[in-house]
Amino acid sequence: MEFKEQYKKYLDAVENQIDRQFMIEELPQKTVLEAMRYAICGGGKRIRPILVQAAAELCGANAEDAARVALAVECVHNYSLIHDDLPCMDDDELRRGRPTCHTVFGEDMALLAGDGLLNSAFEILSDVTEFKTLSDGELLAIIRCLSAASGVYGMIGGQVVDLQCEERDNVTPDELIYLHNHKTGALIRAAVRCGCLCGGVNQNEKTEEILDSYAQSLGLAFQIKDDILDVTGDEKLLGKPIGSDADEGKNTFVTMFGLDGAKRYLSETTGEAKEILKPLGEKGKFLDSLADYLLSRKY
Amino acid sequence: MEFKEQYKKYLDAVENQIDRQFMIEELPQKTVLEAMRYAICGGGKRIRPILVQAAAELCGANAEDAARVALAVECVHNYSLIHDDLPCMDDDELRRGRPTCHTVFGEDMALLAGDGLLNSAFEILSDVTEFKTLSDGELLAIIRCLSAASGVYGMIGGQVVDLQCEERDNVTPDELIYLHNHKTGALIRAAVRCGCLCGGVNQNEKTEEILDSYAQSLGLAFQIKDDILDVTGDEKLLGKPIGSDADEGKNTFVTMFGLDGAKRYLSETTGEAKEILKPLGEKGKFLDSLADYLLSRKY
Repeated sequence: MEFKEQYKKYLDAVENQIDRQFMIEELPQKTVLEAMRYAICGGGKRIRPILVQAAAELCGANAEDAARVALAVECVHNYSLIHDDLPCMDDDELRRGRPTCHTVFGEDMALLAGDGLLNSAFEILSDVTEFKTLSDGELLAIIRCLSAASGVYGMIGGQVVDLQCEERDNVTPDELIYLHNHKTGALIRAAVRCGCLCGGVNQNEKTEEILDSYAQSLGLAFQIKDDILDVTGDEKLLGKPIGSDADEGKNTFVTMFGLDGAKRYLSETTGEAKEILKPLGEKGKFLDSLADYLLSRKY
Repeated sequence: MEFKEQYKKYLDAVENQIDRQFMIEELPQKTVLEAMRYAICGGGKRIRPILVQAAAELCGANAEDAARVALAVECVHNYSLIHDDLPCMDDDELRRGRPTCHTVFGEDMALLAGDGLLNSAFEILSDVTEFKTLSDGELLAIIRCLSAASGVYGMIGGQVVDLQCEERDNVTPDELIYLHNHKTGALIRAAVRCGCLCGGVNQNEKTEEILDSYAQSLGLAFQIKDDILDVTGDEKLLGKPIGSDADEGKNTFVTMFGLDGAKRYLSETTGEAKEILKPLGEKGKFLDSLADYLLSRKY
């Protein structure tokens, strides 16, 4: 299967899961359901759920179960975006070319919609009736992996360091990498690991190690590219103003290494990710193409 | 064992779990660990974790496992308090006689500390190495129960309706009860149900039914008492200003039924909770005394 075709297969599977999960019901709390749906149905590249499904397929997992796990990972990602955009955090008004959740629904509903999406991830993963092949032990391992990645020792920890670094101008490269390994990297790594767990706990140890190293390089490359796009991207394609990182006083790979330095770093890190996959041969082809795709993306 | 002694046993067990779980580590994200610890170590009656442990003991569960589940339930409760107190929500400056989390740590850190505590509940419940007797299936059932209660069809849903009702003066008794059944009731019910699940899934069906009915009446009584204390309580004991509900335009059982009406309703609902326990005989003694204790509490 061609890269684009396989990408679309994974994308359709997760979009279908999202659409089915976040229906608007006629309940007194309908507004928060609308806010959640608005946020998570707002498009996006769906990189994390695609990574879950690609890793799962590599590890011989059931595709429907993998799509369900992918849904849970995407819930965590979108909760973090809603909360990051709030006035007391990055105070962003646009995301993916649309007003942010709090701009449309108010701060209170956006806060609760974010809470609701984080919580949803665990409602989804603990609903055993929705899984065809995953055992209780596998689901628990997935919950453990995802909650560790999204918690204070993972993504939330990275967000804390990000906020602290905004107030300083002497941030070191090591700090910047720590920040992104936690803020972005932890969930990307967990996506791949959760995909592997769909194929069974400790079933594919060698493959899992390779995919974990790949995920680490890919996560870093992803963030460097984001920082480059914030400077060189097209506002219409990005769906948000150019230079917003600099406006918010953020330290980025571009402010740290310069534009050329960041581009070189991106190229190296992407090369690393591709190199790591080699032992997988043909089986690693989709993830290899995904690294190229993320390198050349316009948004 | 006397009521006070048993209460203290459960209280000490959960305080011990909290203290052990939320240690401050020397990490770049230390601040959020401090904010979480500040919030969850701020005392409180610990009613929910006590209910978990009492129900678990009734269902023959392992006490240490029950205390661990109790910890997770208390994490969810404290996350909800931090987020409820935020300026975009109830905007409260005092809780349990201390400045609220965002007053001390700032809105951004409080938001993330709340997120971190919600997430912690699922990190705790999926860490199988920390449980002595609970099976994977039992842990998944507990995660399912807790996440359903804390999500948009439970506690978050109730919070949404609460915010919406503040803007209206024609709230009906049915709406007020819907609101509290979700905002407060869902988690109290889940605490009791999670306790039962510690004794095994579908192991104690008759007892579970009785305890679930008890939890529903107790949850309602708990909220009516809260509303009465907001009018008649002692500020020093309550740790927050009297009349803050009215100041925030909240609809309460006192604004709805008058003070005497609310007191009558409290007495009836507490009576119901006690009546429901009768078939349990001596085994229901602690929960019976707990209903009395909550009826006469001063804070």
